[in-house]
Amino acid sequence: MDSLNQIGQQGKEAAVFLNNLESKNKNLVLQKMIDNLKKNTSKIIEVNNKDIEQAKSAGKTSAIIDRLLLTEDRIANMIESIETIIDLKDPIGNVDKMWQTDDNLLIGKKRVPIGVIGIIYEARPNVTVEAATLCFKAGNAVILRGGKDAFHSNKLLVSLMQEALASCGVPKHAIQYIEDVSHETAVKLMTLNEYLDLLIPRGGANLIQTVVKNATVPVIETGTGNCHLYIDKEADHAKAVEILINGKCQRPSVCNALETLIIHQDVAKVLLPVIEKRLAEFNVEIRADENAGQYLKNWIPATDEDYATEFLDYILAIKTVNSLEEALKHIQTYSSKHSEVIVSENYSATQAFLQQVDAAAVYANASTRFTDGSMFGFGGEIGISTQKLHARGPMGLEELTSIKYIIYGDGQIRN
Amino acid sequence: MDSLNQIGQQGKEAAVFLNNLESKNKNLVLQKMIDNLKKNTSKIIEVNNKDIEQAKSAGKTSAIIDRLLLTEDRIANMIESIETIIDLKDPIGNVDKMWQTDDNLLIGKKRVPIGVIGIIYEARPNVTVEAATLCFKAGNAVILRGGKDAFHSNKLLVSLMQEALASCGVPKHAIQYIEDVSHETAVKLMTLNEYLDLLIPRGGANLIQTVVKNATVPVIETGTGNCHLYIDKEADHAKAVEILINGKCQRPSVCNALETLIIHQDVAKVLLPVIEKRLAEFNVEIRADENAGQYLKNWIPATDEDYATEFLDYILAIKTVNSLEEALKHIQTYSSKHSEVIVSENYSATQAFLQQVDAAAVYANASTRFTDGSMFGFGGEIGISTQKLHARGPMGLEELTSIKYIIYGDGQIRN
Repeated sequence: MDSLNQIGQQGKEAAVFLNNLESKNKNLVLQKMIDNLKKNTSKIIEVNNKDIEQAKSAGKTSAIIDRLLLTEDRIANMIESIETIIDLKDPIGNVDKMWQTDDNLLIGKKRVPIGVIGIIYEARPNVTVEAATLCFKAGNAVILRGGKDAFHSNKLLVSLMQEALASCGVPKHAIQYIEDVSHETAVKLMTLNEYLDLLIPRGGANLIQTVVKNATVPVIETGTGNCHLYIDKEADHAKAVEILINGKCQRPSVCNALETLIIHQDVAKVLLPVIEKRLAEFNVEIRADENAGQYLKNWIPATDEDYATEFLDYILAIKTVNSLEEALKHIQTYSSKHSEVIVSENYSATQAFLQQVDAAAVYANASTRFTDGSMFGFGGEIGISTQKLHARGPMGLEELTSIKYIIYGDGQIRN
Repeated sequence: MDSLNQIGQQGKEAAVFLNNLESKNKNLVLQKMIDNLKKNTSKIIEVNNKDIEQAKSAGKTSAIIDRLLLTEDRIANMIESIETIIDLKDPIGNVDKMWQTDDNLLIGKKRVPIGVIGIIYEARPNVTVEAATLCFKAGNAVILRGGKDAFHSNKLLVSLMQEALASCGVPKHAIQYIEDVSHETAVKLMTLNEYLDLLIPRGGANLIQTVVKNATVPVIETGTGNCHLYIDKEADHAKAVEILINGKCQRPSVCNALETLIIHQDVAKVLLPVIEKRLAEFNVEIRADENAGQYLKNWIPATDEDYATEFLDYILAIKTVNSLEEALKHIQTYSSKHSEVIVSENYSATQAFLQQVDAAAVYANASTRFTDGSMFGFGGEIGISTQKLHARGPMGLEELTSIKYIIYGDGQIRN
């Protein structure tokens, strides 16, 4: 088993190679990975069973076991995601702009890989393949550190990808997996400044906060979504209800799901009973303010804590307001700056909302569930950044790149 | 004196205001700042004298005292830099791209301010004005923490800027100064995640490393420049010599100065004696390998440590190589990825160098001293980033912005 420094060094060397690898050759490697996954589907399922058995006997929850499980369908999805990545235009080498300075220097801003990217994630073997192939297409070496429950699955998946690399003459260390599952090693990875250019945590709030607190390498925070829907007094009622139900009930466990409904007083009386009825179909628990409560049957009073919580569950907080300004103020106070939406037919209200709300994705009249690399047309994503540096919102291929300035001179010196 | 949390809260509130401040109004504030600096020039010099006296009686070095000193000329330079910032096009509000998705969502990628930016710097009062005005033009609230030797100067400069803000109806907390000079407060600022969106250290390597190690807020590393000049066998000799002398001797204390000359064996015999003679005019100490030593008179042997050192002084390391590949390898090993240059008339050699060297700025046939926001045409800079995330190389106005996605829908929900 390689030491972490050795893994870092190997990653750095692979990154130098990847920096000069042509796009068509990256696609050949990705195609080879698909072949390997196809050929080994039954073996993957077999090895995954071992992880599943261990997790079951360790008494893991059914949610964890479900995330851990690989089926033929799920492996087919992995393969499909690699096919999508092959089709994506490689951003590396693009010169975003080029200009001539007063000194007649010709300066170009050129896209380059970031270098070596670390990914810390939980026991989800599909992340292993998704993250590694996206990073690879953008020319980055990747060091993976997955949850220990997925150990055997991850190890096999990585070895299949490494085989594909090697068979195309690419250093297999372009994709590496940290086999040491200790907490100490994870913390050491977070401070591997000599080798890591970026560390991305993918998982729950605990994991992300641990990384943010301990890391000295640059980190991109992903994930937390306390998302609001504001139903304006001039909202289209049908659109409002559908966007709410889609945001809250389609998949409540994800970060772009809705957590709080802010509703204008003028439409509360008409809309809340309709909304309650539709929410009841999904057994959504309602935590509302007194004002909203007048028009509801089953509800409990909402606390400030509720408004601040990302439930990730069939629970909805409701807040009534008397104006757009009050809605904006509530969002400013409680938003995690992930995704926010206004439903309104009023031009100025929507424009003001889009301008003033500070979040990665601000919507007028569409579900927050669209905050996703695939839905945005990026062809995939490595996560959804909730910080403002480098990348904000869904992170696709371009967000996995950096730039460098190339400067063509003819002997210029500075005065 | 406000507590750090209070300062953070005030900064956050000011940032909400700045997010909606029109560009022409920002320029009015900046003009007012110029007026205030002009009107109070003699007062600034008087207060600065107090800092100078204290620094002298505390036995500070003449270098520190020189950095601390404000003269009429230096204040005029500050004013000039604000004039330049007024002329810069405000990047805020630009929609870099906009597209329609398969679901007919219209998605725009819009430039927004980062929010609240902290700057930790040393006792250089000119940084106080430069950093604050650049951050302000990009719509950010700024929290400054300067070196304690410049305390009185900084306090006055900030109050003059705050007066300008207030007289234009802008919250004065858009620019704040931390008066508590304790180390504990500095460390607390580095972990003020609730309020700070970004922290930029400006200063020496010690300061930067302290920030990188202690910060849990996002940081942009600036500064370290171990820069190389490679003289190829097909170099134009005159260009090579001038670019070397400019890079090493014009201002050796800055990060874009040269530290190591890598020279191709084939031209060492002809060029090194010429180079030694020119370097002697500046009393540059030479630390060379044995190969180079054959053609030199006064030199000492270079160690690995020398090749890894940013001298920031009249010292030059020299390394001879037999090929471009060997030069690239040396750079890859020792470069701090700031600025690197090849001097060559050979097309393929320059193209390979520009492609393969991993640095913020890679030059063919021009001095590394051009790595600077003004020289690049950015109209100023907040620093030179040596990391790959968010910003790389000189950071101008655009690098002080973030983005958000604005999404126009008409009732779309996700399947």
